[in-house]
Amino acid sequence: MTDTPDQRRARGTRILDELHPDAYGAVKEAMADIAPDFADFISDFAFGDIYGRDALALRDRQITTIAALAAIGTAAPQLKVHIQAGLRVGLSREQVVEILIQIAVYAGFPAALNALAVAKEAFAELDEKTPGA
Amino acid sequence: MTDTPDQRRARGTRILDELHPDAYGAVKEAMADIAPDFADFISDFAFGDIYGRDALALRDRQITTIAALAAIGTAAPQLKVHIQAGLRVGLSREQVVEILIQIAVYAGFPAALNALAVAKEAFAELDEKTPGA
Amino acid sequence: MTDTPDQRRARGTRILDELHPDAYGAVKEAMADIAPDFADFISDFAFGDIYGRDALALRDRQITTIAALAAIGTAAPQLKVHIQAGLRVGLSREQVVEILIQIAVYAGFPAALNALAVAKEAFAELDEKTPGA
Amino acid sequence: MTDTPDQRRARGTRILDELHPDAYGAVKEAMADIAPDFADFISDFAFGDIYGRDALALRDRQITTIAALAAIGTAAPQLKVHIQAGLRVGLSREQVVEILIQIAVYAGFPAALNALAVAKEAFAELDEKTPGA
Amino acid sequence: MTDTPDQRRARGTRILDELHPDAYGAVKEAMADIAPDFADFISDFAFGDIYGRDALALRDRQITTIAALAAIGTAAPQLKVHIQAGLRVGLSREQVVEILIQIAVYAGFPAALNALAVAKEAFAELDEKTPGA
Amino acid sequence: MTDTPDQRRARGTRILDELHPDAYGAVKEAMADIAPDFADFISDFAFGDIYGRDALALRDRQITTIAALAAIGTAAPQLKVHIQAGLRVGLSREQVVEILIQIAVYAGFPAALNALAVAKEAFAELDEKTPGA
Repeated sequence: MTDTPDQRRARGTRILDELHPDAYGAVKEAMADIAPDFADFISDFAFGDIYGRDALALRDRQITTIAALAAIGTAAPQLKVHIQAGLRVGLSREQVVEILIQIAVYAGFPAALNALAVAKEAFAELDEKTPGA
Repeated sequence: MTDTPDQRRARGTRILDELHPDAYGAVKEAMADIAPDFADFISDFAFGDIYGRDALALRDRQITTIAALAAIGTAAPQLKVHIQAGLRVGLSREQVVEILIQIAVYAGFPAALNALAVAKEAFAELDEKTPGA
Repeated sequence: MTDTPDQRRARGTRILDELHPDAYGAVKEAMADIAPDFADFISDFAFGDIYGRDALALRDRQITTIAALAAIGTAAPQLKVHIQAGLRVGLSREQVVEILIQIAVYAGFPAALNALAVAKEAFAELDEKTPGA
Repeated sequence: MTDTPDQRRARGTRILDELHPDAYGAVKEAMADIAPDFADFISDFAFGDIYGRDALALRDRQITTIAALAAIGTAAPQLKVHIQAGLRVGLSREQVVEILIQIAVYAGFPAALNALAVAKEAFAELDEKTPGA
Repeated sequence: MTDTPDQRRARGTRILDELHPDAYGAVKEAMADIAPDFADFISDFAFGDIYGRDALALRDRQITTIAALAAIGTAAPQLKVHIQAGLRVGLSREQVVEILIQIAVYAGFPAALNALAVAKEAFAELDEKTPGA
Repeated sequence: MTDTPDQRRARGTRILDELHPDAYGAVKEAMADIAPDFADFISDFAFGDIYGRDALALRDRQITTIAALAAIGTAAPQLKVHIQAGLRVGLSREQVVEILIQIAVYAGFPAALNALAVAKEAFAELDEKTPGA
């Protein structure tokens, strides 16, 4: 990692714009008065350093994140925005649902059920934004 | 699901043969004297019913499983065989490593580090089996 | 498992009627437009295949589920309906409370405290339905 | 709780003798040079205060503990001794296996599989001690 | 532990008064009709026996608890009151935030993010109580 | 974070030298042939960016990490090296033990018991290295 701080920031910002056009701004704002640097770590490390690596397509990264968050079961707000991000980079709604159904095998039926409820909310939120869709 | 028991079993067995040519046999044998039906639930439900659905490619199912198991952190033996299965259905070693690095963002660095150690073992085991590879 | 699909469905439905006369219908409805098959997996696999086995009484199965969900700590909605189911198949409210108190030893005081709050809600919901009780 | 310290200790010791005739001694010895008071908390609080309450039979307490530990998935050594304790207070091996199979529904197949491997070890250990059994 | 029940209770009550002047009363009231003994276990065991030990300052105990609860991720209500308790025994808001940021490394960014949201709420609640502060 | 890559690396390396004079080298070596960049993320992000912040003393950071890892329960290798690091920056063995005992309240007795076993190993390893101590 010999990127300059500006390069990390630019790459993280570009990927966040693609995956989370609204959600990251909301996180940044929520953290502004309590932990502003934490929003920078998200942008520079999580998205600039990790998501910015070429070895895995953004679509596959979203499968990874959706599966991990659904299995952990303690990150409903993050799961919702990552489901929406997954749809932006190539996953279909049917595929997202399928990933979450499979979680039942590895983290139990309640984890899958709660994650499917989050997906339902994520889909509904998108439908509200584009009512004609 | 209006499949007959034979259809579920056949589909599960076919997918297990593709993903886990050796590992499922070992599980079946280990469970034989204590919970033989449990091996059938794995074959008929987990692989026949869930993995057998068309909505997600086996390669994407393996990303899902690898991410979920690495994030949970309590399933090293299963993670190892699912990493090997992932390699059989289209993931490269580099992609497996990349999935596990990304887990650091969602489940912490120790989860990623322990999963990478499992991957190292999974890769080494495959190299031993095919020494000329 | 050589049951026909109809046998699995019938057994699952019968047990769900006994344990969750209302809750399963609500889950089925919630999943109807997003993952209708998942409701079938709950009925056929979780209740038809697993709960339908004779080796353990339904009362003991509910101790198992209540303890597991309270310990995991990420399944409040499911814990609530399984507490209510436990009361239907032979557990007293005092026994449910006692199970949850014991969870403090194995999963910590916050897990027990949060589960007891769920139990309180589960009991109140039942009292509302049968105000004369 | 207006028990005297002696009453708590006596009750805890009596229950530990019934459930864990060997295992508690081993824990006490392991903790002797690092945290001797912790062994006392186990005896006085966990077993004297909690297990000593009348509201739940020891057999049902063991279902609770076995289910909780199997679901959590990070307590293999404790799960093993609690499975053995369960057998001492009325659970059959078949019932223990059934509890662990049911865990697959709530905490996933790997949690159940790993717990069944622990049960196999717990049973084998008992068989070695009573070779004629 | 040869303390009398009165000594344990007195020590637990004194520490609870210092750490949680309001929160423990709320817990006690919430548990009054369902599990009143559980409130006593909190007071006598958790605070009387454990927090009452001299080996660790209350400030360091609060770092321990805040870190543990944030890492576990299933105890938002308890995390909030322990953050407020930490401020009462010597932690600054900046230090609390820093502990939670560090949790990202060990339990992932969503755990840290959710814990920071809890901290924000904890701080705001304190500000409301002392508007001139 | 407007540090140059060299500044991040230098700060991370300095802190790693102080906390983990041997352990980081071992991690770096283990990752060398599978995920060399991951060792850099540990050094530059975890230690350079996070531990390098002034808001919390290294001693308090080690309380945080020890508590988080003990509570999570899936990171025994990391817990061991962080216990040893804690001793290097001001925690006494008695304080480490006390932190782990307190974990019983928040993550259950098995989590505390397993963490105390790790501490025992961590202490013994240090004693072996300095036999005259």
